[in-house]
Amino acid sequence: MNSLEEVTDFVKNGHKHYLPHISIDNVIFGYHDQQLKILLLKWKGLNGWGLPGGFIKRREPLSEAAHRILEERTSLSNLFLQQFEVFGDSPYRVKERNPKDFRDKFGLEVDEDNWLFERTLSIGFFALVDYSKVSVTTDFFTEDYQWWDVNEVPDLLFDQNEVVDKALLTLRLQIYHQPIGYNLLPSTFTLPEIHTLYETILGKELDQRNFSKKLTNLGLIKKLDERRNIGPHRAPYLYQFEKETYEEALKEGIVHTY
Amino acid sequence: MNSLEEVTDFVKNGHKHYLPHISIDNVIFGYHDQQLKILLLKWKGLNGWGLPGGFIKRREPLSEAAHRILEERTSLSNLFLQQFEVFGDSPYRVKERNPKDFRDKFGLEVDEDNWLFERTLSIGFFALVDYSKVSVTTDFFTEDYQWWDVNEVPDLLFDQNEVVDKALLTLRLQIYHQPIGYNLLPSTFTLPEIHTLYETILGKELDQRNFSKKLTNLGLIKKLDERRNIGPHRAPYLYQFEKETYEEALKEGIVHTY
Repeated sequence: MNSLEEVTDFVKNGHKHYLPHISIDNVIFGYHDQQLKILLLKWKGLNGWGLPGGFIKRREPLSEAAHRILEERTSLSNLFLQQFEVFGDSPYRVKERNPKDFRDKFGLEVDEDNWLFERTLSIGFFALVDYSKVSVTTDFFTEDYQWWDVNEVPDLLFDQNEVVDKALLTLRLQIYHQPIGYNLLPSTFTLPEIHTLYETILGKELDQRNFSKKLTNLGLIKKLDERRNIGPHRAPYLYQFEKETYEEALKEGIVHTY
Repeated sequence: MNSLEEVTDFVKNGHKHYLPHISIDNVIFGYHDQQLKILLLKWKGLNGWGLPGGFIKRREPLSEAAHRILEERTSLSNLFLQQFEVFGDSPYRVKERNPKDFRDKFGLEVDEDNWLFERTLSIGFFALVDYSKVSVTTDFFTEDYQWWDVNEVPDLLFDQNEVVDKALLTLRLQIYHQPIGYNLLPSTFTLPEIHTLYETILGKELDQRNFSKKLTNLGLIKKLDERRNIGPHRAPYLYQFEKETYEEALKEGIVHTY
């Protein structure tokens, strides 16, 4: 959404094209080089940083909407994008949006009873990507974007700090039974590489021996007959993800390990 | 909702009191005597069995709405009621509801564009209770209720079989890190008792020694100095839930074990 014409129509008639009262917030975690970050956008009218999000079209399946909104912002498609919670305990969630802001910041005339000021529940989705490969797009409402370290997230709009906290908790809790991390490592990798990935995501140290035993027992990775030469007398074995386990998991959204 | 007057107002003006386009479905699992069941209601107008559910009031926090809806049906309050997924991939979810049914079955005149026939996403919550202690209430829209074995769930309305399947999967997946089962055993219990509870919920056999080690390692239960006399030379040790772990878990909705 970039032209004033498109934006004016969205503000005025959006409730005819989108379901009112429900929005989507995408928490996009980015991993690269032992750092875990999240993608935030700077909203012009709302005086602060917030999550990329949007609304569901009247006839659009929910999961398609989440993917469309993500793709519009990041050009990323075919991601493992996972729903984790609906945020609806704050009935006045929209209090930071008001007609005066819309007039002052965007030059848009908006009525008090405009659909954008009504109570809106938000469905949280998260994904994990390699942030070095992502190009982010800003639009009429957003003036900047930034990948923030997960330990240094600023004050966000509405209840979005809670959304981020819950997404991080879910990511960490599910790291052993969701197809997380599949696209973050090369097709073959060493144990130290996947170990570092997991330590970074979990934000804590993991005993290396127990860790590799756990991943192997869960059927998530398998040892290959190849080694990688990285120095004199140093040739660690290579591993790869168990393709079948992951394909099953991607389809069902879950690795069956209970 | 019981009188014709209340129901007529709900059908005609409900969208002024409730948020349209979003409903709640409660999957109530009942455990008793080594059986796992779920609560289904027989809807008069909809020709089949379905989940107890309802709508969110305009100013009502989401989690309060879920508890209110559950309490209206079962008189149960203060339950651990957990959100698990929003179902919104079927845009025509409401196709089984139509004006003719409302007229024929309830004697209610309803317009084609009534809010109850609009697309509605559904937020799934689940709870686990002792079904021998629950009294269920029917109302104007429901003529019967029944606790169904989880392995014998009939064809349900809309996409509710998917809702039930996903609830069961979540329950099983989270059984080791959510405060599930806290109210299903007496305050002190033997290992075989909790072992049976977990086997029933998971629907499979669990090695008894590994199981008790796992629960103890997770800090979920602790061994007491007491035993229970159940026969000559038979006096198994008693256990109890770790109150602090569970209280923390109930507050945060999660046992931190990752």
